[in-house]
Amino acid sequence: MSNKTKETRRIRKTDYPTTDYERIFHPKAIAILGVSADENGVGFGTGMLRATMAMGYEGTIYPVNPKGGTIYGLEIYRSVEDIPGPVDFAVIAVNARYVPESLETCLKIGVAGVEILSSGFSELGTEEGKELERRIQDIAARGIRVVGPNCFGIYCPASGITLLPGPDLSRETGPVAFVAQSGGMSIDFAHAGKWLGVRFSKMISFGNGADLREAELLHYLARDPETRVISMYIEGIKDGERFFSELAAATSKKPVIVYKGGLSAAGARSVASHTASMGGSRVIWQSILRQAGAVQVNDTEEMAQANLAFAMLPPKAFRGISIVGGGGAIGVTACDTAETYGIEIPALPPELQERIGSVLPKPGSSAINPIDVANPFVGPQALKEVLLGAAQDERIELQIIVSLLFHYKGLARAFGIPITEAAPYKELTQCVRDVIDQTGKPVIAVLPNMTRGTESMDITELIALTRQEYLSRGIPVFDELHDAIRAISHVNNYYGGKIK
Amino acid sequence: MSNKTKETRRIRKTDYPTTDYERIFHPKAIAILGVSADENGVGFGTGMLRATMAMGYEGTIYPVNPKGGTIYGLEIYRSVEDIPGPVDFAVIAVNARYVPESLETCLKIGVAGVEILSSGFSELGTEEGKELERRIQDIAARGIRVVGPNCFGIYCPASGITLLPGPDLSRETGPVAFVAQSGGMSIDFAHAGKWLGVRFSKMISFGNGADLREAELLHYLARDPETRVISMYIEGIKDGERFFSELAAATSKKPVIVYKGGLSAAGARSVASHTASMGGSRVIWQSILRQAGAVQVNDTEEMAQANLAFAMLPPKAFRGISIVGGGGAIGVTACDTAETYGIEIPALPPELQERIGSVLPKPGSSAINPIDVANPFVGPQALKEVLLGAAQDERIELQIIVSLLFHYKGLARAFGIPITEAAPYKELTQCVRDVIDQTGKPVIAVLPNMTRGTESMDITELIALTRQEYLSRGIPVFDELHDAIRAISHVNNYYGGKIK
Repeated sequence: MSNKTKETRRIRKTDYPTTDYERIFHPKAIAILGVSADENGVGFGTGMLRATMAMGYEGTIYPVNPKGGTIYGLEIYRSVEDIPGPVDFAVIAVNARYVPESLETCLKIGVAGVEILSSGFSELGTEEGKELERRIQDIAARGIRVVGPNCFGIYCPASGITLLPGPDLSRETGPVAFVAQSGGMSIDFAHAGKWLGVRFSKMISFGNGADLREAELLHYLARDPETRVISMYIEGIKDGERFFSELAAATSKKPVIVYKGGLSAAGARSVASHTASMGGSRVIWQSILRQAGAVQVNDTEEMAQANLAFAMLPPKAFRGISIVGGGGAIGVTACDTAETYGIEIPALPPELQERIGSVLPKPGSSAINPIDVANPFVGPQALKEVLLGAAQDERIELQIIVSLLFHYKGLARAFGIPITEAAPYKELTQCVRDVIDQTGKPVIAVLPNMTRGTESMDITELIALTRQEYLSRGIPVFDELHDAIRAISHVNNYYGGKIK
Repeated sequence: MSNKTKETRRIRKTDYPTTDYERIFHPKAIAILGVSADENGVGFGTGMLRATMAMGYEGTIYPVNPKGGTIYGLEIYRSVEDIPGPVDFAVIAVNARYVPESLETCLKIGVAGVEILSSGFSELGTEEGKELERRIQDIAARGIRVVGPNCFGIYCPASGITLLPGPDLSRETGPVAFVAQSGGMSIDFAHAGKWLGVRFSKMISFGNGADLREAELLHYLARDPETRVISMYIEGIKDGERFFSELAAATSKKPVIVYKGGLSAAGARSVASHTASMGGSRVIWQSILRQAGAVQVNDTEEMAQANLAFAMLPPKAFRGISIVGGGGAIGVTACDTAETYGIEIPALPPELQERIGSVLPKPGSSAINPIDVANPFVGPQALKEVLLGAAQDERIELQIIVSLLFHYKGLARAFGIPITEAAPYKELTQCVRDVIDQTGKPVIAVLPNMTRGTESMDITELIALTRQEYLSRGIPVFDELHDAIRAISHVNNYYGGKIK
């Protein structure tokens, strides 16, 4: 047996404890430890109780506090041992020094897993903090899974359990799983996903990662039928070999989008104080992630946009695209960006140019590709004809339509009507849906917002409404052409064989 | 005399015609050719009349149309020759084939300059179009300056003349001049500048550039006392040697931000149909722009953000910065980005860490730098103390404060009050202003919007209001940390001697 094979075998051996993830992500009953009887309490426990109720979690909630009492009509149990029924999952939000004994009682009554929101552990760098975290690990090793400590916990839209402090996250489930140490990054992405149209299967902020962390979660999510796209924000990893082995295995099953933070000196310092783990060199990370077949992104926006593209586009590469919009400079920008990302914008053949040109205003329009429709008031039916025409070119595998909706403000003002009546946004989104159905080729919408001042809130709202209409028809929306094209390039790189 | 000196002399020789720019940008009277008597008319001429009136232009407006009549209480003159007073500037929006004779009559009555909004010239690629444009050039050469044809014209906030179709641009004047062939790019930037806080001295969309174009406008703007920052979007240039000579001369006086579009094959094709000029190779452009000392940007957002930084920050390089925000992942991201752009985030000395730490919640906060204030509800006075503390470190030359205002929605909901009452945004912006005044070091605000759905319009509005408050106190605001840091790096490169 070669060394390589031996090593691979050693790494691939999964010695993860048996874990009932179903009870953790879809618990029928949860306990929240650290809820005060004060309904205006600002502690994490009370906050999580309010958030879980606001999310409409359908299971049973057992608040716990040694002082007892009631809150929101619920009895507060003095100990988890007093709870009258089985508990699948527990939220621990008590002071750090009481966390080990709380965890111990959870183990005792058969809780499958907990999230520990409290901080005050290894991230402090103190001996006391490290010792408390070691005790958590020891208890976990005896048969209970721990997310945290120093984390924002788990969000699972299907079951209604939510991140700290997320009372208003979406209950719509979807294909994207997200894993991060950082709670801030997680809650931000959960919020952004809601309006951006990224729907989650589950999200796990694991903080210090005393027990469950990146490699094991990757192993699980790669096999999770609810998850079609995995996304991670990584500050530091614990076991490099194991992680990269799991990563390579996962990318062979589904796309894994990785945003690695903390690659600079100051970033590494920040990581250390933030989640008590180590960063690493930029070049090494980039090279290893590429070898493992991960989709690499460089900031939170790029990460969210890549997730949107992977979640909403068919699983294939799109080498040639058309771009339809009013205002030629957008076409120029698009071309430059497309070239940067290796995507073609083929010039349409003369007969298609003629067909498309016949529905466009002249002079000022251009039907070559990018297709400049010359003015922002070209109607939905004409745009539909343009898209149907461009799709005739077999080199076009995906289309992008750019709408500068703010121009409708002038029209609305002239006619004295609200902008939502002046702009035919519902008809537009339905026309685009019709095009997709008739051509079998995806369309991406781009809705730049040029006017974001306090006097233009109606335009901002129109754009948000139009985004919602597109999303409800299964059409992804980006703010900027550049963002859309970069996201397509990630999809292309994953499915196009460049990486795999 | 060496060849080099001879060549320089030849290029530097300015043979530009004498031009009364004051009458063009600050006209006391304008004529608009191509206004119909129909108040609901959708033509460019009628649109520009409405837009100019909406902007509150204080001079005299003379609508012109061979059919005569009245509109909005103004007499429509049958010819510019019938106008009873002097005319400084004219807007020409008649059909392309009537443009030469319209221009001829403007020359005859002593108009200093015109903008020709009509299209149908060389951009069509037809002999007829080219011939019409040659006739424009011949007339211009006899003593009238022409902006256009196929353009959106001139915007000058101080005088109230505006771009097509801009009835709602800002009347606040400022230090930024913008020049572009593209009308779409110009009107978009004019709109974006309004809420972003970029205030313009003048903006010129010159379309086909039959007469006035990039090199001569650069020559003028470099000497224009109203302009402190020059910004250009370039698709193609007419006379490379002259342009780069003017560019190098201009960058020695003030920053010149250049966004070069059309550097890809498809982009060049799009440029050709858009403004009938030629693009060029990416590498050559980058190298020449660098040699000329221009600030190079790669998209419209980067361009707008660089303009904001140059306009609002003191003219110097900022090598060390502090970053203050709640949520550690933001700090990590900041560090990574700062390193990419060559900016230091020095760790604060222990005594300052202690001073800063004393006003921050524990555990969870970190006062090293980036300074993680641990939760989004740390109040303005505490943040002021943090900023005052960090400024004590002489390596810190600029500070960035990141506020995640959407978290106040939870507080607003809990207390049953509007989010604008829950979030102390006015006090925050004033505290930041106080810090700048007390320390003499600039502060930049970053206001990410994580929640842009239709159900979160109140958050979006709060962020827009906070931006407005910051801007009214002279503090620039960016959406994302990355954007802010990249913009600072442009300022650093220009003033830091790297380029100059």
